[in-house]
Amino acid sequence: MGMSLNMVIRVKLSNRPGTLAGVLTAIAREGGNVGAIELISASPTQLIRDVMVRLQGRDAIEGLVSALGQIPGVNVIHVADRVYNRHLGGKIEIQPKKPVTDWEDLSLVYTPGVARISEAIAKDPGLAYRLTMKGNSVAIVTDGSAVLGLGNLGAAAALPVMEGKALLFKKFSGIDAFPICLDVQDPLQIIDIVAALAPAFGGINLEDIAAPKCFEIEEQLSKRLDIPVFHDDQHGTAVVALAGLINALRVVEKDMRKVRVVMSGAGAAGVAITKILISAGARDIIVCDRKGAISRESPPADPSKAWLAQNTNGKGVRGTLKEVLRGADVFIGVSGPGLLNREDIKKMAGKPVVFALANPEPEISPEDIFDIAGVVASGRSDYPNQINNALAFPGVFRGALDCRARTVNDEMCLAAAHALAGVVDAGHLSAEDIIPSVFNEEVAPAVARAVEEAARRTGVARDMPESDASL
Amino acid sequence: MGMSLNMVIRVKLSNRPGTLAGVLTAIAREGGNVGAIELISASPTQLIRDVMVRLQGRDAIEGLVSALGQIPGVNVIHVADRVYNRHLGGKIEIQPKKPVTDWEDLSLVYTPGVARISEAIAKDPGLAYRLTMKGNSVAIVTDGSAVLGLGNLGAAAALPVMEGKALLFKKFSGIDAFPICLDVQDPLQIIDIVAALAPAFGGINLEDIAAPKCFEIEEQLSKRLDIPVFHDDQHGTAVVALAGLINALRVVEKDMRKVRVVMSGAGAAGVAITKILISAGARDIIVCDRKGAISRESPPADPSKAWLAQNTNGKGVRGTLKEVLRGADVFIGVSGPGLLNREDIKKMAGKPVVFALANPEPEISPEDIFDIAGVVASGRSDYPNQINNALAFPGVFRGALDCRARTVNDEMCLAAAHALAGVVDAGHLSAEDIIPSVFNEEVAPAVARAVEEAARRTGVARDMPESDASL
Repeated sequence: MGMSLNMVIRVKLSNRPGTLAGVLTAIAREGGNVGAIELISASPTQLIRDVMVRLQGRDAIEGLVSALGQIPGVNVIHVADRVYNRHLGGKIEIQPKKPVTDWEDLSLVYTPGVARISEAIAKDPGLAYRLTMKGNSVAIVTDGSAVLGLGNLGAAAALPVMEGKALLFKKFSGIDAFPICLDVQDPLQIIDIVAALAPAFGGINLEDIAAPKCFEIEEQLSKRLDIPVFHDDQHGTAVVALAGLINALRVVEKDMRKVRVVMSGAGAAGVAITKILISAGARDIIVCDRKGAISRESPPADPSKAWLAQNTNGKGVRGTLKEVLRGADVFIGVSGPGLLNREDIKKMAGKPVVFALANPEPEISPEDIFDIAGVVASGRSDYPNQINNALAFPGVFRGALDCRARTVNDEMCLAAAHALAGVVDAGHLSAEDIIPSVFNEEVAPAVARAVEEAARRTGVARDMPESDASL
Repeated sequence: MGMSLNMVIRVKLSNRPGTLAGVLTAIAREGGNVGAIELISASPTQLIRDVMVRLQGRDAIEGLVSALGQIPGVNVIHVADRVYNRHLGGKIEIQPKKPVTDWEDLSLVYTPGVARISEAIAKDPGLAYRLTMKGNSVAIVTDGSAVLGLGNLGAAAALPVMEGKALLFKKFSGIDAFPICLDVQDPLQIIDIVAALAPAFGGINLEDIAAPKCFEIEEQLSKRLDIPVFHDDQHGTAVVALAGLINALRVVEKDMRKVRVVMSGAGAAGVAITKILISAGARDIIVCDRKGAISRESPPADPSKAWLAQNTNGKGVRGTLKEVLRGADVFIGVSGPGLLNREDIKKMAGKPVVFALANPEPEISPEDIFDIAGVVASGRSDYPNQINNALAFPGVFRGALDCRARTVNDEMCLAAAHALAGVVDAGHLSAEDIIPSVFNEEVAPAVARAVEEAARRTGVARDMPESDASL
């Protein structure tokens, strides 16, 4: 399969009936899907239109342009790549929050006035939360070792993803997040670097860092720093998966404490989902890696898999993924494409819950099992029930920053998942609506309030004096 | 002397003649200077006004509030610290440059579309300049070891200064600069960290890092990285000082190649100014540190001072600053307050040029010598001829980013200085107008064009293909 391309084709059309239809027919013949069609300008004789087209592969573009050129009354003005256009010049910028229009401003926000703020923070570092960007800022840190599903592409190639993430932070929760793309891949170096640059930030979002080093990096940084350190590929995914499962079990009327959950994938997301499910009350979880069920009878050497061996699969079940899936109530896949088929799902318990989260190709295609599964969720936006990290991280960090949390703990993540599940009210809950859309504006505030409350309850919120006597 | 405070006092006044005059009289009696007075609301009986006041020390505030309270018809509503208010919540934020309002947007700026951009950059890292923030971004890096003139206050205390600098970058040249405040002070660690986080940036601005480690950090990073590394305390100051000196020598009609220059201060700024003056043709420079003139007869151990001993003071002049200043044409001080007096300046050659740049208290107060000096400049905005780094770094980085420069070299700095000097045209040049205001909008574009031209001429500009065939 060629790469999917989002193009915009600008065409000049004779202003007579049927010309646009000819264009659309040609696009369909070349295998393109037409999106929005916009009118750019019109005259009595000519129209200029932008037609959004999704095509498979570069070759299709040339074929289409050539086909369009042969239609009478049609001229192709240009063909633009929409993804490319949206990346030109980058996706984020720094903006002043305070004016700098004259000497007076300059003396207040810079020298000499700023000297007093620096001296105040030197005496009481907590004031940085109030008097600098720290109170609303998050570092999005990656080493580029696991960029999306693409692998170890390195720091520069990770940058557009981190910029995109920064966009989402601002859009969904007003947080000022900044990409830190590190050109080193040794975990100890990464730990030292992130610890060194932490003073300007109220939180650290680790992103697209490969397992197993991601575990050590998060653990060590959480110990060393007094701000939340959150590996989104682990905990963001875990929060949203748990929220989805809470609602899915409501739909199929099963009990978290009684269901058998079979997981596929023992990487960063698999480990984190397992841990949060245990915290949420799940008692019967079997995790499979490529070799099949992980069990304490033959514990793997890898420390995180050894942890899974000790803390899951209490009955010592052995076998391949397909074997252990028989009779299970819940499947959660964070592994690879096409591992399961319709027959495998049929052999699960009644009204099976299937979360096929591998991206972009799920463990089993949702349309293959809609008729036999109780609930189906995936990581994709083109099916119902998208398990999308963007439902978690904006609210989790918003809540943590709002109370200047010193860390992000299990209670905060659990609270986030319950709050997220709660955004879908009982009246709307259904097999095709277990999780809200990322564009649902209730999500981030609901998650943030729950996270802040959990932080205060567990004593990790940072109290700040209301006045600044030290200033 | 108490600390100078910028306050805003909000008062409710009876709407009758003389009430405001009473307020201003009370402020004057308490030693306050009144700035702007704003009308917030008015009714037939009452006015609410904000009065900007500069006071010396906290105690003066209480005295003033008490005095105002005793005036009939005057009520103090609140007293706010203007510097403090301008820092609440921080001074910069991240803003999206592209919309994220629906699924279509999300698929273009984030997954799945962004994957293709990452893959393209992995194949051709140079594309990061076009398709990410890199092409317009600068890291402002400090370890907080030399914050303004305040000393080693550490990373958190440096943050408000770096945020202020980021404001100036955006305001004066549209550059997206981000504060990186490092909680480590070892030069080798700083070098490794900055090298690691460089991929997201088109340039590195080192700031408020103490001498002598700043020299090693800049030198090593310049070698390791393929983007400009510019220590503003050195080269920003040097560029503006040279620009000022070029114009000052025009005013007094002396020749750069013939004047004797005496410098006070052999730290970061002193070394950099000396180097750029040599590049600009100055041949007779004597640099003094606290022990007096540095000469090759008794070279100091410090490598940067040893360099000065080898490359200045060709005649081997010895003596204290005051002694070697006799007969000199130019004094440039980047040292400490009050080192010179009027008698010292009188003993210089005719029409002496005096740049007393120590901040906030200069080596000699400009008003003491306006009548006997040919040209006087300082680092302060309240005298004519302010030597302000903000005249250089925005244009230097703008020019470097515009041609994707691999480094910033001496030629680019020299070109910046000449361009900056050229902004003051011959018709306006005078002893009190040797350097433009930082709010002069011609400055940054003029400097940027000159820097870009010098980068291209010296082969450090990075060529980019006009099309992106690899995408």
